[in-house]
Amino acid sequence: MTEPTDRKRASRRRFLAGAAGLAAVAAKPALAEDAKNLPPNVPGWTHSLGDGVGTRPYGLPSKYEKEVIRRTVPWLTATPESSVAFTPLHELDGIITPNGLCFERHHSGIAEIDPSDYRLMLHGLVDKPLIFTLDDLKRLPRVNRIHFLECAANSGMEWRGAQLNGCQYTHGMVHCVQYTGVSLKVLLAQAGLKANAKWLLAEGADAAAMTRSVPLAKALDDCIVAYRMNGEMLRPEQGYPVRLVVPGWEGNLWVKWLRRIKVGDQPWYTREETAKYTDLMENGKARKFTFEMDAKSIITSPSPQAPLRQNGFTVISGVAWSGRGKIARVDVSLDGGRNWRTTRIDGPVFDKACVRFYAEFDWNGEPLLLQSRAMDDTGYVQPSKDALRKIRGVNSIYHNNGIQTWALKPGGELENVEVG
Amino acid sequence: MTEPTDRKRASRRRFLAGAAGLAAVAAKPALAEDAKNLPPNVPGWTHSLGDGVGTRPYGLPSKYEKEVIRRTVPWLTATPESSVAFTPLHELDGIITPNGLCFERHHSGIAEIDPSDYRLMLHGLVDKPLIFTLDDLKRLPRVNRIHFLECAANSGMEWRGAQLNGCQYTHGMVHCVQYTGVSLKVLLAQAGLKANAKWLLAEGADAAAMTRSVPLAKALDDCIVAYRMNGEMLRPEQGYPVRLVVPGWEGNLWVKWLRRIKVGDQPWYTREETAKYTDLMENGKARKFTFEMDAKSIITSPSPQAPLRQNGFTVISGVAWSGRGKIARVDVSLDGGRNWRTTRIDGPVFDKACVRFYAEFDWNGEPLLLQSRAMDDTGYVQPSKDALRKIRGVNSIYHNNGIQTWALKPGGELENVEVG
Repeated sequence: MTEPTDRKRASRRRFLAGAAGLAAVAAKPALAEDAKNLPPNVPGWTHSLGDGVGTRPYGLPSKYEKEVIRRTVPWLTATPESSVAFTPLHELDGIITPNGLCFERHHSGIAEIDPSDYRLMLHGLVDKPLIFTLDDLKRLPRVNRIHFLECAANSGMEWRGAQLNGCQYTHGMVHCVQYTGVSLKVLLAQAGLKANAKWLLAEGADAAAMTRSVPLAKALDDCIVAYRMNGEMLRPEQGYPVRLVVPGWEGNLWVKWLRRIKVGDQPWYTREETAKYTDLMENGKARKFTFEMDAKSIITSPSPQAPLRQNGFTVISGVAWSGRGKIARVDVSLDGGRNWRTTRIDGPVFDKACVRFYAEFDWNGEPLLLQSRAMDDTGYVQPSKDALRKIRGVNSIYHNNGIQTWALKPGGELENVEVG
Repeated sequence: MTEPTDRKRASRRRFLAGAAGLAAVAAKPALAEDAKNLPPNVPGWTHSLGDGVGTRPYGLPSKYEKEVIRRTVPWLTATPESSVAFTPLHELDGIITPNGLCFERHHSGIAEIDPSDYRLMLHGLVDKPLIFTLDDLKRLPRVNRIHFLECAANSGMEWRGAQLNGCQYTHGMVHCVQYTGVSLKVLLAQAGLKANAKWLLAEGADAAAMTRSVPLAKALDDCIVAYRMNGEMLRPEQGYPVRLVVPGWEGNLWVKWLRRIKVGDQPWYTREETAKYTDLMENGKARKFTFEMDAKSIITSPSPQAPLRQNGFTVISGVAWSGRGKIARVDVSLDGGRNWRTTRIDGPVFDKACVRFYAEFDWNGEPLLLQSRAMDDTGYVQPSKDALRKIRGVNSIYHNNGIQTWALKPGGELENVEVG
């Protein structure tokens, strides 16, 4: 029975070797024979003028990054208008998602709205129904908040076992940007709430006319009627010109192309919160209004789409978030959850936002089982997939925040696996 | 002599009216006659399916935002390869600049570097000269930092009076993104510094082979060899695949397409720090190594390119930054600097990063002189342009952080003016 201790020692050695082995990283002695582009050699791009300013008035990534795109899984849905294109998490770092790579999930395609024709109606149990133009909204006090947005169905195929081999496809329905807009409570204060107001209905202007019920307490807490992401106006795929931001709660509530908010005294039980976006349990009943996204973490690199290219010192990079508050800690395991090490969270830690974690280690080429486990400031600990299944069964497609395992193979490739 | 008091009272009334007048903002009663697209009316975009997912694997802004682009001033420079395209500050909010709108300033155009051919050489007064591939850099411990980058020549034309009528053109050589990369001190530790090491030379791989001297103390403090901005790889215009990040210091030091770092015992006095990027004083001498960017703030909206469209409650939005630390406070004036009001800073406040400030007020259509004034946590207060000129004369084109005045006219247009 010395195995666990041995394993623990082996694991500690690996990590320590990583920390101490930094000086051994791959940099070559200067002027190595194969370094054809070394100074004082002068490569081609230094011989002549490049493109001038103004070549791209709105800039795009390098042509060498053309594989860094949102990707679809064609067999996943019947039509592209009601489908998803995933964020390439394995190609990103830090906490900000560039707008062009934020995942898209539509129910009737992308509504194309002329901002001068945009209207937002606020009515129901209010003293004074109101209609706002986009200019009206822009003339009201603004707030800036960095928040993650995760689709409730993210990682949904993992309920029944590892099914897709790529961080982008399994977990790529999450992004994190800075929003600018008006606090919803400011709009509600202008209209004046009736004493019996308890719920809001948010409605989108796309052909799906997406509708969701939002508790008034949440609306008054931290919801934002947002028109900007990362400084510029929202992208069409993210609800241009206006979307609802519901921090920490499932993405489906963040109604895009927001055209109407109705105040009521009870939820509406719309299609999107009854037939869909409820979690079907083993006994045939469904969990009702599972709004909050539980704490979750994913190792984004290495991962199946981002293999290791050589042995030696390297960096595990991952992203974590919690719908209940701030991420307090993220651990990683190299051996499928037997031993854990606390990672280094680097960069800002905001409420209901992504954080970036790193764990450096020295890889000797042996097979490993990489996992990460997030904890938030409520004390919640990200569970294993099996722990989730014991409570919720495998009928659901929503709210899977179970610990992900990537099997690292001797050649450096990785695979989406289950650890029994 | 009651005038100042009267002015102060009038100013206070204006601001108070703004704060209290929020309920009076422009939203119309619901179902107004002219609201052709109101629910329950159904506008065109709700009648049919929109574009599906995957239409734009790398997303772009709405077609209605096509004027939100970097812009050049053709007469400003002889060639587009050594020129500048400005960030449209008047169209942005929050603190993050989208990568596609980060200003570009090149000296020989945009070097186009195949990342597999990229090399970074580290040599000079080191124990072991090293060469890093891009993969080598990516295998080293990473950091994430949000920092502003300002060109030393930003606002440079203001030295001799208000010359261009647009926030984008006068002050648009600044942006703020999250960088990911390796701390420069990690690379230097790997090479091992000789005892007499005191300065670094950073060299770019473009045809200008831009070179700048950086004090070793700064390099060991907070410099980053960065390969990502806002999560994705650097854009070609910002030095793809690798640039130097020199937080708080003038943009010219942030060498793009970084190919070489040499360690020495004294500065190199390169062209870019002698003939250029020095501040010529009235007596013919030049200020030497003016690295730090002083605290500065700009009202981005309203501004000449972002006029007010109607009277009433509205929002002054602006951006502030300091190369010496954190922004502690930003004030605005409506009357050319006679009376000041402290603004609300909304969103994160990082060291050497942009902050966003807001001041709401109720505009009755009268002409105003809008100004903003930043203070940082060292106690430094942004000076007037005249105060700067008294010390530095008007020969320089660099380091103009003087208070900007926008004259708001009765029709809502604004003009770049000087206040005596």
